Amino acid sequence: MATNRKLVLAERPAGRVDENTVELLEEELPPLGENEALVAVRYLSIDPTIRTWMNDAPGYLPPIGIGEVVRSGGIGEVVESRSDRYNEGDLVFGMVGWQSHLITGESTGAFLQPLPPGTDPLMAINLFGINGPTAYFGLLEVGELKQGDVVVVSGAAGATGSTAGQLAKIKGAKKVIGIAGGPEKCAFVTDELGFDCCIDYKSESVARRLHEEAPSGIDLYFDNVGGEILDAVLANLALRGRVVLCGAIAHYNETGRPAGPSNYTNLIRQRGKMEGFIVLDYAPRYPEAQGALAELVTEGQLKHREHVVDGLERAPEALNYLFDGTNTGKVVVRL
Amino acid sequence: MATNRKLVLAERPAGRVDENTVELLEEELPPLGENEALVAVRYLSIDPTIRTWMNDAPGYLPPIGIGEVVRSGGIGEVVESRSDRYNEGDLVFGMVGWQSHLITGESTGAFLQPLPPGTDPLMAINLFGINGPTAYFGLLEVGELKQGDVVVVSGAAGATGSTAGQLAKIKGAKKVIGIAGGPEKCAFVTDELGFDCCIDYKSESVARRLHEEAPSGIDLYFDNVGGEILDAVLANLALRGRVVLCGAIAHYNETGRPAGPSNYTNLIRQRGKMEGFIVLDYAPRYPEAQGALAELVTEGQLKHREHVVDGLERAPEALNYLFDGTNTGKVVVRL
Repeated sequence: MATNRKLVLAERPAGRVDENTVELLEEELPPLGENEALVAVRYLSIDPTIRTWMNDAPGYLPPIGIGEVVRSGGIGEVVESRSDRYNEGDLVFGMVGWQSHLITGESTGAFLQPLPPGTDPLMAINLFGINGPTAYFGLLEVGELKQGDVVVVSGAAGATGSTAGQLAKIKGAKKVIGIAGGPEKCAFVTDELGFDCCIDYKSESVARRLHEEAPSGIDLYFDNVGGEILDAVLANLALRGRVVLCGAIAHYNETGRPAGPSNYTNLIRQRGKMEGFIVLDYAPRYPEAQGALAELVTEGQLKHREHVVDGLERAPEALNYLFDGTNTGKVVVRL
Repeated sequence: MATNRKLVLAERPAGRVDENTVELLEEELPPLGENEALVAVRYLSIDPTIRTWMNDAPGYLPPIGIGEVVRSGGIGEVVESRSDRYNEGDLVFGMVGWQSHLITGESTGAFLQPLPPGTDPLMAINLFGINGPTAYFGLLEVGELKQGDVVVVSGAAGATGSTAGQLAKIKGAKKVIGIAGGPEKCAFVTDELGFDCCIDYKSESVARRLHEEAPSGIDLYFDNVGGEILDAVLANLALRGRVVLCGAIAHYNETGRPAGPSNYTNLIRQRGKMEGFIVLDYAPRYPEAQGALAELVTEGQLKHREHVVDGLERAPEALNYLFDGTNTGKVVVRL
């Protein structure tokens, strides 16, 4: 018998998540059934998409119901097992939710994947969850990265953007331009991650700098943010330029109708393409991305950084970091 | 020696073309050189893209210079020839410009294509110029039309839209929904062209009707107009829906920054794609489209209608018809 502490959705937020959005509840978990295991959550993966699940709007997954645990990826440790699949002490990852404990097994519907022994859990939550595969498939499959491409990545200091930009460089892009907010993040993007340059959207005209940095135009844009930055990139698109719509963080907290990208007509002139994707569609192929990324990390070619926030109760605050631009790297809540 | 009457660009229009936009000039043409032919223009193809060439802005072709003949496709008749390529009486088509006569040949840079003997010139100007190939390649190659697709075509009573929609039906679309302005055009689209239905954007909520007519969503949208209609379609996109950006007639006369499509984020949720194209890229393959369309006309499967305006001087007025929605079918100026 274990006590679970869980954050349930109490009220749908209008704009940012606030103190009324979630409620902390405690519950006694039932004894384990056959083929089940008890997992203590160690890390939560804090992702912008969680904010979209809180809206009562159609999405690629159903909205989180009022009273339901906030849906979230994460990593846990098996603390008790009645399953051959899980051994005590195993680290497992998957959709754990904003809570301290859960039971995994066939009957619970929560299937958590054991991590290979010795895996660094922070690397795993950063690269093996949704961010790594998102960067990998978004860039290589949706974006069809080509040798010699001029690539732009927004949210470049974030989990997905930092991986996408490094991967572009590794896979033969001629130039990788990051966009991030503030001098510290930009320094991280160029000095640590090795992007060719980084535009600070808080202090520079993105459209003008893009024009200077990519005078022949942008071949591939990996878009995590939407909004004005997307418009600035469309204005500087190269012939047959591709825009990969990964996210639109600029819009997730908007309550009214967002402004669309005026410069979309450039897609006609430049024979360009703008394509959205949801990484879940690639789930059967995650091991391919995870394997490739882990190898690059081992070889020292790919770096990852996590912004760790301690305490389950701080998960809502940590979620807001993504929209405030507080974090550099992957936001993780440690329990 | 022949006298050419020509409309040259006198002033770049802000918004609609008006009485100051062009000037009618007369000039004596020089005697024919070797391998040249004199062509009397019979029909001008009036296309929305002409309006975009009048702007002093980068485009897929250079802007028309002040003092230059307005660039335009059309059909002429060879009235004198010193070329083996052209015989007196031949009908030829290509970029003739808004003028009564021109000299075609290697030295003039104007290469006009002879029409196969017996070709109906109105069919040719409608289907063999840019509209037919635009509909053909836009729908089948860029849009990757699939059997069973639910297809929406805006500008459905216009030259490109009417062909695209009929072609979609012929090639196996499950349902073809037109969008046009006014009950007469809508009647033409359904009764004459055989679309399954037509939404009158002047009197109906396009978003609501699309939702009713395509409850499972829109697989393929052939967009000639942009603006609010594009946004309404994006709101109703099916999973993996494709938007073919052919034109954006709603924006061509705008002087400020146009509103972009707010609902572009639906491309993420629906894993959709929005792609622009310029039919000139397919020029080497025009004969393929022309042959296929001519065959469908001969078989009675494909209909075409022209809206004929008499007199070179009325070309600017005819161009405005496209934006006023005056025309049903292809706008042609007859000289």
